[in-house]
Amino acid sequence: MRQCLGMPRAIDLMHQAFAALSQGEVTAPQRTKISSDQGTMLYKPALLPAAGIFVVKSVSVFPGNVTQKLPVTTGILLVNDATTGLPLALMDAEYLTALRTGAAAGLACRLLANPNSRQGALFGTGGQAYQQLQGLLCALPLDEVFVFSRHKEHAEVFCRDHSQASSPCRLIPNPDRNRLHECQVISTATTSLTPVFQDLEIAAGTHINGIGSFMPTMAEVPAETVCRATVIVDQRSSCLNEAGDLRQPMDQGLLPASFCPAELGEILSGEKVGRRSPEELTFFKSVGNAAQDVVCAAEVLRQAEATGIGTTIEI
Amino acid sequence: MRQCLGMPRAIDLMHQAFAALSQGEVTAPQRTKISSDQGTMLYKPALLPAAGIFVVKSVSVFPGNVTQKLPVTTGILLVNDATTGLPLALMDAEYLTALRTGAAAGLACRLLANPNSRQGALFGTGGQAYQQLQGLLCALPLDEVFVFSRHKEHAEVFCRDHSQASSPCRLIPNPDRNRLHECQVISTATTSLTPVFQDLEIAAGTHINGIGSFMPTMAEVPAETVCRATVIVDQRSSCLNEAGDLRQPMDQGLLPASFCPAELGEILSGEKVGRRSPEELTFFKSVGNAAQDVVCAAEVLRQAEATGIGTTIEI
Repeated sequence: MRQCLGMPRAIDLMHQAFAALSQGEVTAPQRTKISSDQGTMLYKPALLPAAGIFVVKSVSVFPGNVTQKLPVTTGILLVNDATTGLPLALMDAEYLTALRTGAAAGLACRLLANPNSRQGALFGTGGQAYQQLQGLLCALPLDEVFVFSRHKEHAEVFCRDHSQASSPCRLIPNPDRNRLHECQVISTATTSLTPVFQDLEIAAGTHINGIGSFMPTMAEVPAETVCRATVIVDQRSSCLNEAGDLRQPMDQGLLPASFCPAELGEILSGEKVGRRSPEELTFFKSVGNAAQDVVCAAEVLRQAEATGIGTTIEI
Repeated sequence: MRQCLGMPRAIDLMHQAFAALSQGEVTAPQRTKISSDQGTMLYKPALLPAAGIFVVKSVSVFPGNVTQKLPVTTGILLVNDATTGLPLALMDAEYLTALRTGAAAGLACRLLANPNSRQGALFGTGGQAYQQLQGLLCALPLDEVFVFSRHKEHAEVFCRDHSQASSPCRLIPNPDRNRLHECQVISTATTSLTPVFQDLEIAAGTHINGIGSFMPTMAEVPAETVCRATVIVDQRSSCLNEAGDLRQPMDQGLLPASFCPAELGEILSGEKVGRRSPEELTFFKSVGNAAQDVVCAAEVLRQAEATGIGTTIEI
């Protein structure tokens, strides 16, 4: 998978994904959820005719697996041809999901962050963090990225593990909190229920990517920050329903019920405007969507076929 | 797949499937359907805790494939562990679907047909036909099976191809229509929109399995036959909604709106009674359900693991 698709190309593919999403070209019915006593399976099918494929992502979420040292989350993508219906490929969804999520943040940075951003911050060092970092580094000429984690040692390990791949940008674990004010770009990739920074820590002109909060009970960014920012979302319907970062200020009356943030695809098409001035605060909120999966899966398949990577199985 | 699970064991497994189905132990949300210009994908997930697995069946239906000599229908089953969520296996759904459909008919024959049935009839020679025949032969001591097809040559080819495997029962293609009246058991496995026989052709005491009609527009069995028969279904909700064999007489007022046929699982549990006399006409209508897939997939996986059949793949 890694040989077939890396961050630079994935960011390009996000143009296609978000344009298709905002133009209603993606068919992605609501996911189906089934729970056993121990956990939940989520089945998310989608079709993007332009990509030539159907994709269904089958994701398991079994929190108790932690105690058995098994993965809490696994994912498998099944790809079928949009013209013949024939099954084409089976892919691990873990790398692809992290990559496309990082690529969305990268595209948002290209479109919304101040292009001369030199300092960045990353909150969270879990499964999404490395691709979030890659998204930032591909999009902006960063000299330093400050890495924050609730567990200081996790930030240290993360920076040690990824410093070489991030060079010449320096990764700095657990810096003095004051340094957050120097950052022109911040990505949050945590499962936090409460904001991971305070509004007064954020300087004017900063661009924030929030990819962690995907349920109404979760929030990474303070309501005050959300309210003073220009908010851009991956998909309005899902973000306004699912993301606590937006849902909570709306429910508290801090944002109007008519709150209607632009979609990234609408900025790509020129229909809406993103950043208007260097001093503006911008916030890209993403809960992720099937269009991103489909364009990435199509590219992985193309590359795998072109280069002979992968295994042909008979069933 | 064939080495792992054959008809006799599949019929036994249908006891478990239909009992679980009627006792509400199967979680099977409505299938998700997505269509491209050329065809449709159907995604059907299910959980049966007693079988220890989740299953999602991804089926393609692309009618135009016929002109390219590609399969109109393909199916893939993904199996996840109910306790850990981990992906366990990927299976071709084609054989499994035909097998479990034939096994349901076989179980219905055991429970509902006159046990001394010697003559049978099979309508249809398509993808389901061979396993329908197997279901009949496993359940009843048949001497002859009359094979009917709209295309006489299809019946001839079918009988030639399967005569050896069906011995000592004789397969007779396109017999004189009068012989249908000799049959004590009939299976219909066609995509017909209109009944494949007339009511007066059916003798008292006959048991009929109908597995072809799965949409309200389709019907294989005449309304008169349905109305004079004791009707048993695999699952009430799906059969009364989807099967034209039942839907059409209900819509025409030939069956009451309160029509409430027994489920096979209710007969297994003794909650309801099937055949009451040798003269009674019985009709088992099946549209198929996820419980059948899950129990068969679980058994295939057990056997494959026990015997080392199958391929381990890394993704």
